Amino acid sequence: MRTYQLGRGPNQPVGDVDVFRWDGYEGVGAMPFRAMWYQVPAGGSSPADQHPELELSIVVAGAGAVEVDGRAPVEVRTGDAFLLETEERHVVHNRRPDEPLVVFSAYWFAKEAGNG
Amino acid sequence: MRTYQLGRGPNQPVGDVDVFRWDGYEGVGAMPFRAMWYQVPAGGSSPADQHPELELSIVVAGAGAVEVDGRAPVEVRTGDAFLLETEERHVVHNRRPDEPLVVFSAYWFAKEAGNG
Repeated sequence: MRTYQLGRGPNQPVGDVDVFRWDGYEGVGAMPFRAMWYQVPAGGSSPADQHPELELSIVVAGAGAVEVDGRAPVEVRTGDAFLLETEERHVVHNRRPDEPLVVFSAYWFAKEAGNG
Repeated sequence: MRTYQLGRGPNQPVGDVDVFRWDGYEGVGAMPFRAMWYQVPAGGSSPADQHPELELSIVVAGAGAVEVDGRAPVEVRTGDAFLLETEERHVVHNRRPDEPLVVFSAYWFAKEAGNG
């Protein structure tokens, strides 16, 4: 068994968002996806993002809202998951004024989803 | 975007552990892994488990300890991740007397890990 802690790897911030990608972690080559943690600061929002990979996110701490393709934001909180499809343009807002929103994300290209 | 909430799907308990597998959820066919949430009750432990799939777990709430192949338990808490290799026999203990340990797990067979 290997363990991984949030914030142990290098931070590659995107705007105000702290991003810890797993690429540099030992042993992650055994996964059929890439992974990261990210933190949206209290009261803040992520820059808009859009990419070909599908992305499954799990809210690890806090409460947020996800805006996709300009539609009404969808509220998410600790324990919730959200799956972004290919090329969905998304913005993640932290709804809490006093604590970071922490998210774990796994992402992959559709062609990598053998059971898709 | 699709969202998934802990406890929305059917519970398939294993011993005292509540297990919510994603198999019945809409849209999960697009993932290169299977997934579940599980909850170990306050002060409780999972039955020993061992399986060919690799399993990546993210602690969503609480604090626990993971025993692998009879070795000394490894402490994990909210936000931590642990990766179980093929056939590692594991027991997950909830270290808190007053709240459930909530874990999200993704699992897959080694042959499915295209980048492995």
